[in-house]
Amino acid sequence: MVTNTVLASRHVDEFRKIVGEQYVLIDEESLQHYSHDETEDLHYLPEVVIKPRTAQEISAIMKICNKAKIPVTPRGAGTGLSGGALPHLGGVLLSMERMNSILEIDERNLQVTTEPAVITEVLQNTVREKNLFYPPDPGSRGSCFIGGNISENSGGPKAVKYGVVKDYVLNLELVLPDGEIIWTGANVLKNATGYNLTQLVVGSEGTLGIVTKIVLRLIPHPKHDLLMLVPFKSAENACAAVGAIFRAGYTPSALEFMERDALEWVSQFVSGSTIKIEEEVQAHLLVEVDGNDVDVLAKEIEGIAEIIQGFDCGEILFADNAQQKAELWKLRRRVAEAVRANSIYKEEDTVVPRAELPVLLKGVKDIGKRYGFHSVCYGHAGDGNLHVNIIKGDLTDEQWNGSLKDGIREIFALVKELGGTLSGEHGVGLVQKEYMNIVFNETQIRLMREIKKIFDPNNILNAGKIFDI
Amino acid sequence: MVTNTVLASRHVDEFRKIVGEQYVLIDEESLQHYSHDETEDLHYLPEVVIKPRTAQEISAIMKICNKAKIPVTPRGAGTGLSGGALPHLGGVLLSMERMNSILEIDERNLQVTTEPAVITEVLQNTVREKNLFYPPDPGSRGSCFIGGNISENSGGPKAVKYGVVKDYVLNLELVLPDGEIIWTGANVLKNATGYNLTQLVVGSEGTLGIVTKIVLRLIPHPKHDLLMLVPFKSAENACAAVGAIFRAGYTPSALEFMERDALEWVSQFVSGSTIKIEEEVQAHLLVEVDGNDVDVLAKEIEGIAEIIQGFDCGEILFADNAQQKAELWKLRRRVAEAVRANSIYKEEDTVVPRAELPVLLKGVKDIGKRYGFHSVCYGHAGDGNLHVNIIKGDLTDEQWNGSLKDGIREIFALVKELGGTLSGEHGVGLVQKEYMNIVFNETQIRLMREIKKIFDPNNILNAGKIFDI
Repeated sequence: MVTNTVLASRHVDEFRKIVGEQYVLIDEESLQHYSHDETEDLHYLPEVVIKPRTAQEISAIMKICNKAKIPVTPRGAGTGLSGGALPHLGGVLLSMERMNSILEIDERNLQVTTEPAVITEVLQNTVREKNLFYPPDPGSRGSCFIGGNISENSGGPKAVKYGVVKDYVLNLELVLPDGEIIWTGANVLKNATGYNLTQLVVGSEGTLGIVTKIVLRLIPHPKHDLLMLVPFKSAENACAAVGAIFRAGYTPSALEFMERDALEWVSQFVSGSTIKIEEEVQAHLLVEVDGNDVDVLAKEIEGIAEIIQGFDCGEILFADNAQQKAELWKLRRRVAEAVRANSIYKEEDTVVPRAELPVLLKGVKDIGKRYGFHSVCYGHAGDGNLHVNIIKGDLTDEQWNGSLKDGIREIFALVKELGGTLSGEHGVGLVQKEYMNIVFNETQIRLMREIKKIFDPNNILNAGKIFDI
Repeated sequence: MVTNTVLASRHVDEFRKIVGEQYVLIDEESLQHYSHDETEDLHYLPEVVIKPRTAQEISAIMKICNKAKIPVTPRGAGTGLSGGALPHLGGVLLSMERMNSILEIDERNLQVTTEPAVITEVLQNTVREKNLFYPPDPGSRGSCFIGGNISENSGGPKAVKYGVVKDYVLNLELVLPDGEIIWTGANVLKNATGYNLTQLVVGSEGTLGIVTKIVLRLIPHPKHDLLMLVPFKSAENACAAVGAIFRAGYTPSALEFMERDALEWVSQFVSGSTIKIEEEVQAHLLVEVDGNDVDVLAKEIEGIAEIIQGFDCGEILFADNAQQKAELWKLRRRVAEAVRANSIYKEEDTVVPRAELPVLLKGVKDIGKRYGFHSVCYGHAGDGNLHVNIIKGDLTDEQWNGSLKDGIREIFALVKELGGTLSGEHGVGLVQKEYMNIVFNETQIRLMREIKKIFDPNNILNAGKIFDI
């Protein structure tokens, strides 16, 4: 799959001088290791893997690559689901893994400055020790890097109350493709000074520059949370309940939807699960509230439960201790793994205005019937973000690589019609770019392409992601 | 001041055909009316004022202007403080005032779609009737337009808890300088689909396109709020208390700082004020908490009061009825007017990490002493956003237009050193652009300029704002 690049052995020698012998890898095993992320079953071999430690090293590497027009693919933890870290053009795979220090927790200003290769959960736990809270918590938070979260504008269950990554990023140190190092903004909560380069870089999937330092705002950590699992006989009813909760004035700290298969598969996948699913149950909502006053929270969750009972739900499970909460969250977080263990699948990260969820879910199922595919749907219902996992199952390779794409196009056309778009939190990357023209017209794509050109005139940095080269 | 533009009478005729005779103004009085906003005492005459009603009309106007390279300055309510709406190159003044309809309140999805010339407070009150909340509330919310708020990424007192305009904008309809009409995103809470054009346009001060429709997310309106006014003998102590409140885990819904002069001047300016300021008082904090449970709020405000008492404050005034709350907010909101009525002034919209406020305040006063100017400072202390009003007072015109600029440069250099930047919520516009090189290097400015060029290759739209032409 690798195009002929201009990477020569003298370049490899130069890279070794910059980062040290042991951090430039060209052995088959290493190249294999960095040839894939969590996206379907895709593999692309890089020609060389480099593990820099500093922005200055990256700058020196980029100067060489920019001059020689060597493709560069930056990579965090490789947990991406849209192929953003796949080195599909060969060239340099720039693994950020050694840049893994939390540089400063500024308790006076409720900010943290970190390098990109800190695991999101480690960052969360570290600031938690100071009673501070960094809310965005993608499903993979136990293994993904904060830098990758910046690149994808990640979300996670807490986004429904606390927002996504973009809502916490104040400032970024960025190595541009030509090797220059800039900061995108300032370490302030409000900023009306020039164009918002910070927000342009967040979610740009590593195509505009390489993020080497990140300044995040933090908030005080809520002291308590309550959690309940609600079964429904109808998946559409579960989705409909979501809208009703918000209309009643509640803002849960998580509002997760799981189709029956999702919870069933993960209960079997995770050892020791105690969850029983009644036969007539078609879907679940996992609802969390958080705050500082436990009496207020109890009232809130009762109020939410009352609303939900208007949607023909089954018996609600209130998680009444930390262990039970942990189990429910573990199940929710490992759904993706369980689906993957069950079958090859494609994951579409659809997002619509939240009240349109029941329409989207019904549409996905109808399209599935027409194209003959089974789907397992789950996701962040409070945000209207539904992960549609299309299961390969009995589909032939021809169907899988051929007509299925028309089905996916139909799903995205429906998403667009409902006011939504392709991806809520996984990014476009390599595998969704062919659908960009469903949600954007030529002018919109031209503007984006030209922005890319400003930052990367030689088109060396993660080229061919988001749009074709 | 008007440069020679290519605007000819045939263009005026064409504009009349597009929007109708009565909405194209060239009489002296109209041109005068649109020659200034709220920025200092600056005046620039446009050559023609056009009041379009639709995006399509604007598109037709822009096609003409783009072809003939006629400068176009979009204008909302003219309440800006950085000169963004000043037609300093003559040409067309595009007044958005007729595009003033709220198009849809989507109660199912907690969203509102509005035209740009709706007064911010009208928008807030309208959604409030549905128990919905659009928090950003600039001081001028009773007269400014929501479209102008988008252009400046406005804040206001509530930003400390609820964030600024950018945190509520989901999607924008934009007429590009060449007349094309695009949407910048989708009506969704999470979006990881291509570059964030929406956030690029928010805060771009009308230089990238003309916003013609705005989709905002809303939240449930909090049911209660409590307010207190706290006097301090030391302004620096007042600033220091701000940081302590957040470190204790509280997030007030407003945390406003006013130097003695600010509150004293506005109490005299607003008729019927009942506020008494003790002689030894040097500053005030106005602190609000909001939420749904009044007992919880009472506990919160008591907890905050306890912290504040560690900073040598005077007797706290708890506003215990709606009238008293309204009076305090009226005073705070009219400080800018009171300062203006007192003297010609320049307002610097400094912003730093919040814990650096005491350092900034002391620095401003020291610089003032050295350059011989008096300043009145107030602002959104919870966000580290300090409005430094430099009073002309006894300064000569030479000092005012000459050496004072060096003093302002020193203030901004200090702001930069403290991790802050030029503007928290007023924008750069015409009057701060000469200071851009303090906070940005050549590469950062080049990236911004090139982005401008992509959207506006002929440099006709609000050219010479943010950066020189």
